Amino acid sequence: MKELEERILKDGKVYAGDVLKVDGFLNHQMDVGLFRRMGEEWRRLFPQEVTKILTIEASGIGIACLAAQVFGVPALFAKKSRTKNIAGSVYTAQVESYTHGGVYTILVSKEYLTRDDKVLIIDDFLANGNALLGLLSLVEQAGAEPVGAGVAIEKAYQPGGARVRQTGLRVEALAKIKAMSPDSGITF
Amino acid sequence: MKELEERILKDGKVYAGDVLKVDGFLNHQMDVGLFRRMGEEWRRLFPQEVTKILTIEASGIGIACLAAQVFGVPALFAKKSRTKNIAGSVYTAQVESYTHGGVYTILVSKEYLTRDDKVLIIDDFLANGNALLGLLSLVEQAGAEPVGAGVAIEKAYQPGGARVRQTGLRVEALAKIKAMSPDSGITF
Repeated sequence: MKELEERILKDGKVYAGDVLKVDGFLNHQMDVGLFRRMGEEWRRLFPQEVTKILTIEASGIGIACLAAQVFGVPALFAKKSRTKNIAGSVYTAQVESYTHGGVYTILVSKEYLTRDDKVLIIDDFLANGNALLGLLSLVEQAGAEPVGAGVAIEKAYQPGGARVRQTGLRVEALAKIKAMSPDSGITF
Repeated sequence: MKELEERILKDGKVYAGDVLKVDGFLNHQMDVGLFRRMGEEWRRLFPQEVTKILTIEASGIGIACLAAQVFGVPALFAKKSRTKNIAGSVYTAQVESYTHGGVYTILVSKEYLTRDDKVLIIDDFLANGNALLGLLSLVEQAGAEPVGAGVAIEKAYQPGGARVRQTGLRVEALAKIKAMSPDSGITF
């Protein structure tokens, strides 16, 4: 998506340690006009029936809500918990975090994800793929149909894209970064 | 706001321990059509100039984004951290949590909250008022102007509303609960 790539070039900053700072418009301060147009792009890419948008707190919520507005369906966000044993009424998955270290549990209530749902997964970043695979696991536990995954930015030089796509899930990234470094900048 | 009150009566559940479960439409699964109309109601209540919507992760983000769409401004969410000493480029405030216990730090980047901003604070619940007071502190540290606070649901029998309003901040709750209990239900 041209607009997102241009915005990343304009406002994104690359730091050592494979860090892309886009918190001026994507995951701290949020440009909801851009989010709406991202939702419209995902709608174009996924024209089939979708009954629910699923994302993960916190930085997925904004883009998921604006996408949900375009699709005309509810958004649902998986909660993160450091508690490993959570009882009964929720589906859970373990997600390993490279950014923060350690493993956390993500969970959604069984009430809001059912075998009747056709689910589009939305997240801000795809790097190692762990968050998307965790969300996909929640969809599968519910017996719902995973329609696909829309991510804002894919670090295409990392293994996550291949890991997620080899499950058969269709993944559409609106900006795919081929390479980046503090010195040479960003290449799509 | 009639629609929100009716939705709380229809889908909300009251549990012992002063718990109101509204996670079917407000803070887990999210009805973004309702969120848009809540944003329009806050715009009617706060017709003055607003340059930024400020909220707190995670359950404030959805309503803040749809409100930001109505106001035509960016949304910014304060991040929660368990780390007490955070360096330099952020404004921080301490918030005591009754729900989860303990104290956490909320923070926003100094880049995105400045003395030129006129800020509407948005959150899902007002009970003891600690979260709103923390957000107000961030606005004041930035030298920005606090226009007011919009909350979805105020537990008006708890002290938070008075605590926040006595700072001079105008607070508009779209549903004000006078009393609730598992036996007698909810009274607005």
